[in-house]
Amino acid sequence: MKAAYYEGNKTMSVGDASPVPPGPGEVRLDVAFCGICGTDTHIYHGAMDQRVQMPQVIGHEASATVAEIGEGVAGFAPGDPVVVRPLDNRQETEADRGYSHICAKLKFIGIDSPGAFQNSWTVPAFTLHKAPAGTDLKLAALCEPLAVACHDVRRGRVKPGELAVVIGGGPIGMLVALVAREAGAHVILSEVNAYRLEFARKLGLEAINPMETNLAELCQAKSGGSGADVVFEVSGSKAAASSMTDVLALRGRIVLVAIYPKPVEINLFHFFWKELEMIGTRVYEPEDYEQAVQLVAGKTLPLEALITDIKPLEQLPLAFQELASNTQAMKVLIDCRA
Amino acid sequence: MKAAYYEGNKTMSVGDASPVPPGPGEVRLDVAFCGICGTDTHIYHGAMDQRVQMPQVIGHEASATVAEIGEGVAGFAPGDPVVVRPLDNRQETEADRGYSHICAKLKFIGIDSPGAFQNSWTVPAFTLHKAPAGTDLKLAALCEPLAVACHDVRRGRVKPGELAVVIGGGPIGMLVALVAREAGAHVILSEVNAYRLEFARKLGLEAINPMETNLAELCQAKSGGSGADVVFEVSGSKAAASSMTDVLALRGRIVLVAIYPKPVEINLFHFFWKELEMIGTRVYEPEDYEQAVQLVAGKTLPLEALITDIKPLEQLPLAFQELASNTQAMKVLIDCRA
Repeated sequence: MKAAYYEGNKTMSVGDASPVPPGPGEVRLDVAFCGICGTDTHIYHGAMDQRVQMPQVIGHEASATVAEIGEGVAGFAPGDPVVVRPLDNRQETEADRGYSHICAKLKFIGIDSPGAFQNSWTVPAFTLHKAPAGTDLKLAALCEPLAVACHDVRRGRVKPGELAVVIGGGPIGMLVALVAREAGAHVILSEVNAYRLEFARKLGLEAINPMETNLAELCQAKSGGSGADVVFEVSGSKAAASSMTDVLALRGRIVLVAIYPKPVEINLFHFFWKELEMIGTRVYEPEDYEQAVQLVAGKTLPLEALITDIKPLEQLPLAFQELASNTQAMKVLIDCRA
Repeated sequence: MKAAYYEGNKTMSVGDASPVPPGPGEVRLDVAFCGICGTDTHIYHGAMDQRVQMPQVIGHEASATVAEIGEGVAGFAPGDPVVVRPLDNRQETEADRGYSHICAKLKFIGIDSPGAFQNSWTVPAFTLHKAPAGTDLKLAALCEPLAVACHDVRRGRVKPGELAVVIGGGPIGMLVALVAREAGAHVILSEVNAYRLEFARKLGLEAINPMETNLAELCQAKSGGSGADVVFEVSGSKAAASSMTDVLALRGRIVLVAIYPKPVEINLFHFFWKELEMIGTRVYEPEDYEQAVQLVAGKTLPLEALITDIKPLEQLPLAFQELASNTQAMKVLIDCRA
C-alpha cells in the first residue's frame, strides 16, 4: 500500500507503507477519498511544525469502507461505507464537563496521529459514522467540512425566515451558506474575490462584494429595517471582525467560524447598544456529523459543484503545490483507493 | 416645589418649579429618593451635552409615592409606593421586533426628558412598578441599578453552583455580584481598588486584586480545573477586556455590562478554542424590575450598606461636586421629599 507523508519544509512524499492491523476497539478502513483542508495546507507550509511529528501521514476529511474489524467492535461489517469524525477524546476528564469535542487534551486524528492520505487507515471505532448504502463516496468526503458548517449553523440557532450573512466564500463559507439556507434562512454571502462571488452565485446564493455594496444597508432593506439575525464570520479578516456588528439587528448573533490567532478589535459598543451575542465554534459534535451524513445522502445540497479537482494519491505532492498558487480551487479531493 | 437642573459646564442648580399635572396615561409622583448614577456624573461633566437639553432635570433611580393620577390610568392610588422604569418606548416600531427596552427610538427618561431630581415628577403610567406596602423607599431607590444587575444575571443564564467572576467593584459590579450570589453562584469579585475590595468583603463577597492574585488560576482551583462559568465585565477597562477570556471554562459565557465607547481588542482565539459566548446587555426589561422590587422587599441582599451618603435636594450640587473627588462613594442618594 501507499501513504503520503508530510516531511517538513513544503515537502510531501508518497511512499510504501504497511496496513496497521486493527487493535481492540479499532477498525481498519480502505480509504476512498480525502479532501485537502486549509489546515493541511497550513501544515504543508510549516505553520504547525511544532505540533506535527514528521514524517506524518496527514488528512482528515475522509470517506472510506470498512476493511477489517478489531476485537470488541460491534455494528460494522466489511464493505460498510463510513466517514471518520477525526476527534480522539480518550484523554477527556471531568473538568471538560462533557464537552468531548473540545476537551482540553483532545487529539486531532490526521494532525496529532496518522491521517487519511493513504490506502489503508486504522482508526478507533468510536470515530466512525456509517453512511447509507449507495452514498457517493466522493461527496461523503465532504462530510467533515459539512459537519463544521452544521455545527456552526446549529450553534447560531438559525431559524426559518431569518436573514443570515456569511462573510467569506471559501469552502467552509460556502458550506455554512448552504446549510443555513437549508435551515430556512435567507442567506447573503459577502466576499471580495470575483471568482468566489461568481462561484457562490452558481450555487444559487445571493453574493455581494462589500467593497461595492453597503452590506449593512442591504441587510436593513432585506429585513424591514431590522438588520440581519445572524452573521457567520468565516473570513478571518480584521476588517470583517471590526464591521460584523454593523449589519446585525437587535439581539443579533455572531457566529465566529474563522480562527483568529491574534486578538482583534471588536465594536463592543454595538454589543451594548443592540444586545448582541457572539458565539465561538470549534469542529463538531456527533449530531453534526449525523446531519452531514444525511445531507450528503439526501442530495439536496449542490455539493458536487464544490469539488474542483480530484487527484490520485500519487499526485498528492502536486496537488499541494498547485493549491499554493491556485486561487480558483474550492475543494480538492485525493483519491486514496488502492 | 424645588427641582435641580443641569445647566452645562459642571453646574447643577436648585430652583423653583411647578408640578406638572398628569395628562392622560400619566401619573404625578411625589419623589422620595433618587440615586446618582454614573450616567448622571457623565452628564455633569459634559460628556453628554450633545444629547441633553439644558437646563434639564436629570435623575432616573427614583423611588416615589403616587400623588395624582391622570385620565385612563388604572391600578394606582394616591400614596402607593412605586419605582420608575425610566424607558419610554412609545416610538417603537415593528423593526424593533418586540425588544422594547432597546428599541431604536428609545427615549431615556431623566436624560432625554425630565428626571427625578425634583419634589414632584410626572411620568407615563407604563413606567411604574408598584412596591409592596411598607417597602423602605431609600432601598427602593436602588431598584434601577438592581434591575440592571438582574438583567445581566438573567442574560448570563447563571445557574446554582456555577462559578461567576465579576470584574469591577463599583455599585453595578457589587449589585451584579449580589444578584449572582442570590441566583446560587459562587462569586469572585475582581477589583484593583483597595477600598472597594474591602467594601466587597464586608458584603460577604470573595474579592481579589488581579494584580496580586492570578484570577485564572484561582478559577481553576475553585472549579476542579474547569474555570469560571461566567464572567461579568463591569470595569470597562481594556486590560479586563483582553484578559476576561482567560478565566473561563469550556463554553463559558461573558456578560458585557460595561460600556466601551471605542473598539477594544478581544482574544477571539479563546472564543474558538473554548467555544465561548459573549452576551451584550443594556438596561432592563419589566421582569427585571419586578425581580428588583421583590429583592428589595425581601431584604435578603445587604443593600443598605451600599448607600454611602444621603443628601437633601438642596445639596445636590454639593453631592455632584463631592462625587468628582470622592473615591470611596458607592451609592449616593438624594432625598427629594418636599
